Amino acid sequence: MLALGIDPGSAICGWGIVEQKHGNLSAKSYGAIKTSPKAKMQDRLLKIYTELTDLIKIFQPEVIGVEKLFFGRNSTTAIPVGQARGIILLCAAQNNLDLVEITPNEVKMSITGYGGADKNQVIYMVTKILNLSEPPKPDDTADALAIAIAASYEANNFARRNFL
Amino acid sequence: MLALGIDPGSAICGWGIVEQKHGNLSAKSYGAIKTSPKAKMQDRLLKIYTELTDLIKIFQPEVIGVEKLFFGRNSTTAIPVGQARGIILLCAAQNNLDLVEITPNEVKMSITGYGGADKNQVIYMVTKILNLSEPPKPDDTADALAIAIAASYEANNFARRNFL
Repeated sequence: MLALGIDPGSAICGWGIVEQKHGNLSAKSYGAIKTSPKAKMQDRLLKIYTELTDLIKIFQPEVIGVEKLFFGRNSTTAIPVGQARGIILLCAAQNNLDLVEITPNEVKMSITGYGGADKNQVIYMVTKILNLSEPPKPDDTADALAIAIAASYEANNFARRNFL
Repeated sequence: MLALGIDPGSAICGWGIVEQKHGNLSAKSYGAIKTSPKAKMQDRLLKIYTELTDLIKIFQPEVIGVEKLFFGRNSTTAIPVGQARGIILLCAAQNNLDLVEITPNEVKMSITGYGGADKNQVIYMVTKILNLSEPPKPDDTADALAIAIAASYEANNFARRNFL
């Protein structure tokens, strides 16, 4: 099973595709969609939409994982992050992908076993779990892989719950 | 010139198309895209995307107007509103429409001459300016028509600035 994890952002939208085979996880591909801060927001969103649609066509994941977001204090970034997130949800619906929404704490818990883990611990464990030769860069890509791993576990549990 | 105004929301997404001809404004068409709160968010966004794309194909507006949003206190709705707004911006980019972003105060100023006008004053003036037999319903549709009127004025000023 292939899971695509996304870390949404209008400047850098990290993505990672994780394959689950016989209980083992491996990174199929990963990267980041970058858009210019000088470009108009609508053109940046179109770029994210186009590249994400291409990724889904090429790799055909069954699951798309994205963070469930809660904005308390820093609400100035909520609108741009929400806009990029809207594009991701649209891509999920257009391609009939299962959407797995996970809180940042659940992602940390799933990767490190500890909901309060810091960024470096998560990146360290992502590198280890996926057997990568070096930590994925930029951080948005590492985050996207972490989400893809957590979404794989979640989808697997879900499948187990439904078939047992 | 045709301007499409949108009042984004995931439950009700108001829309209104205003025609500007020889300095007069009239309502070409208006309504609301409604999605069920019981449906998955990604399916609701897909419905908004599909219906908005259809509207643009049918009426071929040149301008799309949408409110510029600032969230101070009530940031819990910022993510869902941002998601719906992302879909609108994507539709603008995919169809090469000019995007006019206006603050709520600018919309009120443009319609009533007063930035602190209340909802009823705006609806009253929208009905008057567009020569409608009754106030447009729901309020989201009236708001969308107000945005379309303000976007028409704005686009007209912009054209004037560029051609004089």
